Amino acid sequence: MPFNDTDTLAVNAIRALAVDMIEKANSGHPGLPLGLAPAAYALWSRHLKHNPQNPAWFDRDRFILSAGHGSSMLYAMLHLFGCGLSMEELKNFRQSGSLTPGHPEHGMTKGVETTTGPLGQGFANAVGMALAEKYLGGIFNTPEFKVIDHYTYALAGDGDLMEGLSYEAASLAGHLALGKLICIYDSNGITIEGSTALTFTEDVKKRFLAQNWQTLEVADGNDLSEVDAALRKAKREVEKPSLIIAKTHIGFASPKQDTNAVHGEPLKYDEVLATKKNLGWPYEEPFRLPEALAPHFEMLAQAGARAEKKWLKLLKAYRAKQPELAAKLGDYLSADLPEDLIKDADLAFDKPLATREASHKALNLLAERVGNLIGGSADLAPSTKTDFTAHPERTLHFGIREHAMGAIVNGLALHGGLRPFGSTFLVFADYMRPSIRLAAFMNAPSIFVFTHDSVGVGEDGPTHQPVEHIMALRLIPNLAVWRPADAYETFYAWETILRNRKPACLLLSRQKLPILSEQKDKIKAGVKRGAYTLKGPALSPDVEIIATGSEIRLALETALKLESCGLRAKVVSMPCYEVFLKQDEVYRSSVISANLPKVTVEAGKGMGWKDITGGKTLNISIETFGHSAPAEKVFAHLGFTADSIVEKIKAFL
Amino acid sequence: MPFNDTDTLAVNAIRALAVDMIEKANSGHPGLPLGLAPAAYALWSRHLKHNPQNPAWFDRDRFILSAGHGSSMLYAMLHLFGCGLSMEELKNFRQSGSLTPGHPEHGMTKGVETTTGPLGQGFANAVGMALAEKYLGGIFNTPEFKVIDHYTYALAGDGDLMEGLSYEAASLAGHLALGKLICIYDSNGITIEGSTALTFTEDVKKRFLAQNWQTLEVADGNDLSEVDAALRKAKREVEKPSLIIAKTHIGFASPKQDTNAVHGEPLKYDEVLATKKNLGWPYEEPFRLPEALAPHFEMLAQAGARAEKKWLKLLKAYRAKQPELAAKLGDYLSADLPEDLIKDADLAFDKPLATREASHKALNLLAERVGNLIGGSADLAPSTKTDFTAHPERTLHFGIREHAMGAIVNGLALHGGLRPFGSTFLVFADYMRPSIRLAAFMNAPSIFVFTHDSVGVGEDGPTHQPVEHIMALRLIPNLAVWRPADAYETFYAWETILRNRKPACLLLSRQKLPILSEQKDKIKAGVKRGAYTLKGPALSPDVEIIATGSEIRLALETALKLESCGLRAKVVSMPCYEVFLKQDEVYRSSVISANLPKVTVEAGKGMGWKDITGGKTLNISIETFGHSAPAEKVFAHLGFTADSIVEKIKAFL
Repeated sequence: MPFNDTDTLAVNAIRALAVDMIEKANSGHPGLPLGLAPAAYALWSRHLKHNPQNPAWFDRDRFILSAGHGSSMLYAMLHLFGCGLSMEELKNFRQSGSLTPGHPEHGMTKGVETTTGPLGQGFANAVGMALAEKYLGGIFNTPEFKVIDHYTYALAGDGDLMEGLSYEAASLAGHLALGKLICIYDSNGITIEGSTALTFTEDVKKRFLAQNWQTLEVADGNDLSEVDAALRKAKREVEKPSLIIAKTHIGFASPKQDTNAVHGEPLKYDEVLATKKNLGWPYEEPFRLPEALAPHFEMLAQAGARAEKKWLKLLKAYRAKQPELAAKLGDYLSADLPEDLIKDADLAFDKPLATREASHKALNLLAERVGNLIGGSADLAPSTKTDFTAHPERTLHFGIREHAMGAIVNGLALHGGLRPFGSTFLVFADYMRPSIRLAAFMNAPSIFVFTHDSVGVGEDGPTHQPVEHIMALRLIPNLAVWRPADAYETFYAWETILRNRKPACLLLSRQKLPILSEQKDKIKAGVKRGAYTLKGPALSPDVEIIATGSEIRLALETALKLESCGLRAKVVSMPCYEVFLKQDEVYRSSVISANLPKVTVEAGKGMGWKDITGGKTLNISIETFGHSAPAEKVFAHLGFTADSIVEKIKAFL
Repeated sequence: MPFNDTDTLAVNAIRALAVDMIEKANSGHPGLPLGLAPAAYALWSRHLKHNPQNPAWFDRDRFILSAGHGSSMLYAMLHLFGCGLSMEELKNFRQSGSLTPGHPEHGMTKGVETTTGPLGQGFANAVGMALAEKYLGGIFNTPEFKVIDHYTYALAGDGDLMEGLSYEAASLAGHLALGKLICIYDSNGITIEGSTALTFTEDVKKRFLAQNWQTLEVADGNDLSEVDAALRKAKREVEKPSLIIAKTHIGFASPKQDTNAVHGEPLKYDEVLATKKNLGWPYEEPFRLPEALAPHFEMLAQAGARAEKKWLKLLKAYRAKQPELAAKLGDYLSADLPEDLIKDADLAFDKPLATREASHKALNLLAERVGNLIGGSADLAPSTKTDFTAHPERTLHFGIREHAMGAIVNGLALHGGLRPFGSTFLVFADYMRPSIRLAAFMNAPSIFVFTHDSVGVGEDGPTHQPVEHIMALRLIPNLAVWRPADAYETFYAWETILRNRKPACLLLSRQKLPILSEQKDKIKAGVKRGAYTLKGPALSPDVEIIATGSEIRLALETALKLESCGLRAKVVSMPCYEVFLKQDEVYRSSVISANLPKVTVEAGKGMGWKDITGGKTLNISIETFGHSAPAEKVFAHLGFTADSIVEKIKAFL
């Protein structure tokens, strides 16, 4: 069916609304919507499988606006296509309390699949979503029933494709042959500083070919038929992801078309009018829509609703003919976990274990009870111990691409149906920090496993020794940072992370740590509360030692030594600072006493501990970069021995 | 001259030493040295222009081992080529206090041009160094005198090339036509998890071609002549950087050749012996070298010394014939700055200025007095205000490549002769955090300018609003994080950063801030000490307010309002926490009083402030992600108004 005048009107409606929103907010990015609206409209009207009335339909196509600064276009489309975003919200674009924030926020606005804005992230999230689809399809689809069968579409701009993250993610997408991933590249030749010729002269087509993608070209991004044809071709290629290079005009039809001035600043009022005039848009009045559009979008919405209905029918038949698979699918999609995720009988440790080793045991045990737990490492599985022994198909190989791993884990988590994690050394958390931040901001249940969590890394030296990272992760709002002290704590940390379904980091030791078997009941009750009293002296204590992870052994040893000096020490284990801070006041003050002098012991920067301890506090911490030597020597050099700590505590008291 | 048996012996000496070092340390990465030694040796013996006796020779070729885990190979070469690294140091590989840490550390070991290990960084540093060479050559070379004329060589592995950073840096290097940048790619087909076929199947040759590089192939990385020929060809191509794809065998000649097991674990003793036997190495005894090698390396060292002598002669003639240029070159290479970098007369501000605007003025003023101040933005110059108006040639355009920008700025700084900076929005500091960390660790005088430094970003919303970033940067050891409060503080912050020649971040506001003209003398004296009393009440204060950057205006307003409630407040401005902490105790206690109740005001996470204030403290801070609305509304929503702060302080006291 050829495109007609109503389609053109619809495209211009997107443009006009976007421009009106930005004009009213006096803030926003008109360049992208004016240039890319035709491509986005062609995609949504002819290809995107979605039911506007139910944005949560599991088998919908995923749509990601990686170039998140084009939010006004997305909001205009969500309104026009009937996804429940009102005209009132459009009028409140970028204002307090609206559903139309500056950049699209997942969880805020229905139909927004992921939070975008920081460039490259959406593109890599899309790779994660396409991977989720392929992975789940591999498990659940049968020749008769394709219950998981959707495309993942991304719109990306020059900025997305210049970010290293997008190369990493594209390389992996090509490698994994994610044929149902389709990206439209908004190639408008302009970035904020001017022409892309200023900095970006690589051959994008050849680059994607080198990365095992199909590339297609749309010479005129304003031509709906051309975009449509490219999308059809892209969908037919199932072995390779597709990049559609669409030549567009930033700020199309505006007086500033094809200039960087139209990227991120509102048009002036007369420019808005000129733009509308150039487009042949019938109204000067903002936010006004031609009546002809309503039935058109209604028709498209009905088609979407029918598509979901069809899928529900398919699912019903699937349940009848494939009851086991259907039940399993139900498990995957549900948030429920078995009550006895960790049983007491699971926990038998006969010798000291690095917490990364304990995590390996936990992970492989949990794998039997949580069918959709998958994940892997950025080429460090032999060290991070994150492989699934009995389920190798669940082990993902991200390659040496930490940043893409972070964003792909977010995409897997957002897609639904899976409990994904990624892992690397803690020091390399920095490489993926923007994605960790977005997981926290979106409240996506992404899990990041970071091993080699201190100067205990030893000989690899300061380039590989995290010092500031534990606290730097704790600084990110809404991120639970776990640092268990032994195998027991590690198991319960895994359990709590899975139950809480919130963004979390799990920090694990390279070096062996003793098993706190005598305290196992306290650990069982305490870990899920973030902190607990691991060792309380019989009489009222003189000092309270708060430690985490590998430093708990030191804290216990120190307490013993203090005892022989006639000082009574209480030891608090705090595997998760953030979770502890959310406990009620009564519990918190039962763990952290108001008036005792405090000593914190953590092999990292001490900044921030006084926020928890209040009052008189001694931080045993590391304030400089580490150094290269066997781990024990590094710790000793930095004062992390019980004797050294005892001396400091005595002086402090 | 064909390679001969002595060359082969030299190659194997590198291998044997590396293996012995790792064996003795019982820690290290034998795979790379065994595979890459021939290529490295061919480069060093036939091409690398350097004088082992003077690793600081300015016009030396730069050599970067981007795959820093191959440190043992580099140390072995530094020893053999006579660069002053003793056999004793090799024997102390990876031990406390040695000059041979786990990964190469710039500043620790002579001849190590940059700190590597975190993958991709060295490759991108090399791009920075090649850019420095090209830039300086463009200024100082004449047809007769090529005083700046060296190559930059990097050795990179699969890990380097999988990191997004390397794609960003390569894209820019190709764009900038850095023809004297030559990278040897150690293509051994193996990463830690196994074959590169597991995750990395892109066509690297095509990828680099797409990025405007010359690519050359060496079918047998063990063939010295083949490597030599490729290097000669690479050097002849001056319009494009060159990638030499050398097919090598990880762990060559060892029983674990071509497996991932040899990447990062020491060989067992019998494997060491087998390796030496396979190589035809004459000694089982570790650290023993054939006598024939000493004269060979002595001859190479003499050639290096002659090369420097020749350059010194050239420089002498240059001084005679081009006295002005020579004097300018002297200025560039010297660390000296004019005494009156900022004059009182420079400072005249008639209206409120965003600190990013003030920085623009400062930068363009300083540009007149610091000839080698260069820098730019990751495609945000119109927003970060970091362009040089009168010296457009000094404005760098990094493209939307924050991470590469960070590493390239480090490379520019390490090269010498330039005072470089890079800039983006503060929230995107996360994208380049690994490079910032390395700048801090290397003590490289890199400057990072981060604007839009708070929720004052406004409508762009939480994806673009830094909340945790100020404190997260302060967590990095040896990094000075500056956050000036007005135009005066901004000028003096720039001055202090340039004078201190240490890694620094400069955090600047998007929004206008009043000028503190009345306090200009206090500011002049105080900024360089990191903090100072901006406003002390006539009588002893009841409360001390400590603030930074854009919150100083709020602190002053709050103090005024408190006064009208009968409460006397002292206001401390703390533009740089780290610099303040380095002041003597007397000064510090004159600024931060021991016994007063404290209030900190900073539009970011409050964690960490109590480390400075001690005792009774109220943090006015932001503990959640921001939100999208006009800046004033966001601040008000988060309690950042004088009225709200006054109420909180009254309740607190």
